[in-house]
Amino acid sequence: MSLNLLLASTSTVHGHPYLSYYKDAWTAHFAEGSGSVLFVPYARPGGMSWDDYTAHATKAFEAEGIPMRGMHTYASPTEALADARGVFIGGGNTFVLLKTLIESGAFAAIDEAVKAGMPYMGSSAGSNVAGLTVGTTNDMPIVYPPQFDAFGWIPFNLNPHYLDPMEGTTHMGETRETRIREFHHFNSQPVLGLREGSWLEVRGDNVTLHGSLTARLFEAGKAPAEVSSGALAI
Amino acid sequence: MSLNLLLASTSTVHGHPYLSYYKDAWTAHFAEGSGSVLFVPYARPGGMSWDDYTAHATKAFEAEGIPMRGMHTYASPTEALADARGVFIGGGNTFVLLKTLIESGAFAAIDEAVKAGMPYMGSSAGSNVAGLTVGTTNDMPIVYPPQFDAFGWIPFNLNPHYLDPMEGTTHMGETRETRIREFHHFNSQPVLGLREGSWLEVRGDNVTLHGSLTARLFEAGKAPAEVSSGALAI
Repeated sequence: MSLNLLLASTSTVHGHPYLSYYKDAWTAHFAEGSGSVLFVPYARPGGMSWDDYTAHATKAFEAEGIPMRGMHTYASPTEALADARGVFIGGGNTFVLLKTLIESGAFAAIDEAVKAGMPYMGSSAGSNVAGLTVGTTNDMPIVYPPQFDAFGWIPFNLNPHYLDPMEGTTHMGETRETRIREFHHFNSQPVLGLREGSWLEVRGDNVTLHGSLTARLFEAGKAPAEVSSGALAI
Repeated sequence: MSLNLLLASTSTVHGHPYLSYYKDAWTAHFAEGSGSVLFVPYARPGGMSWDDYTAHATKAFEAEGIPMRGMHTYASPTEALADARGVFIGGGNTFVLLKTLIESGAFAAIDEAVKAGMPYMGSSAGSNVAGLTVGTTNDMPIVYPPQFDAFGWIPFNLNPHYLDPMEGTTHMGETRETRIREFHHFNSQPVLGLREGSWLEVRGDNVTLHGSLTARLFEAGKAPAEVSSGALAI
């Protein structure tokens, strides 16, 4: 595999425009090649249509001089990828995303292209699916996908929008940390909690954490650890 | 169907002992009959073992003079139910619960007994499974169940631990209300958000809301509505 990935925690950091917090990274990531960046709108945040979501992402890309086109506007996933310089899967609902990717045939086609080196970017749900499974998503399971196995390009799971326990709350729902510990009663792979405004860069086998915050690494049978920006050993 | 259900939002309200906030309701619910209440520990909160979780619930029941025994201690679900005056499925992870119920054969056996009138109680995940699907759980999908369809004893979905949007937060994760609205882009059944300390009583076709708080009813294509304690028309 010749991986070339940007995996962002979120599309939008509070108080900043869509995709702006890591704009230098993604404009460089998609600078080369003659085709469009293929936008995959299948996660449908807020139930938004494929067309509306694609228009939203395209506005941000075209402002940087990068052409973009929605995957759903092509006759087939293969035809879409043949025309693309890279792929961006936007955030939304991870279950809706995974189900649509698989049922449309896009899952296998994107997997093949990305393993062959095509630049990939994900945000939130689009980052979740780069991990081993979607078993650490925060999303509501509003549709039933045919599997929880994801692309598995990185040898761990992600938890985007990682949220530290809030002091003083009286709500008895589990904290994010408690949920990830539960995950490790049934699964062995590490889980990386990516805080808002963080992103991972994956080049071949090298994974680098970017952004101003640390990330929280959960490994089965170990105490959680904070990992700093820079090269990660997971 | 001759339903006889108590469906609680949570097992524990902040600052109060386990199951205490609706003790009068469940002690009356399970007052009759000569066998034990069958405890189903399969949701494993915090990854707790079946034995430990059963011991925890049994302590609360036996303090009220109601005998209890864990479902996993019987040779089969059928044998367990033959010995029971009622069933209590405790909270934890809804995905782990549903998968274990189905794979153990308990799902079909409990469904048959409850439809025939056996008193049932659920809390949190144990209430979720009484609805049409588990598609509105808040839990992390740490295991892959063979279906999202639940018992469907009530003609809607539940969202236990319903949490109102928090003012002033800068975290960009979706609110509970946003998630349930997304659910309605893909599903048509109503969803009832049960706040902590609320519970439903179901007798035949009649559903009554108990507790000091209102519940929030989400219906596809309508504005959410607050419903007060008392008989519900869903």
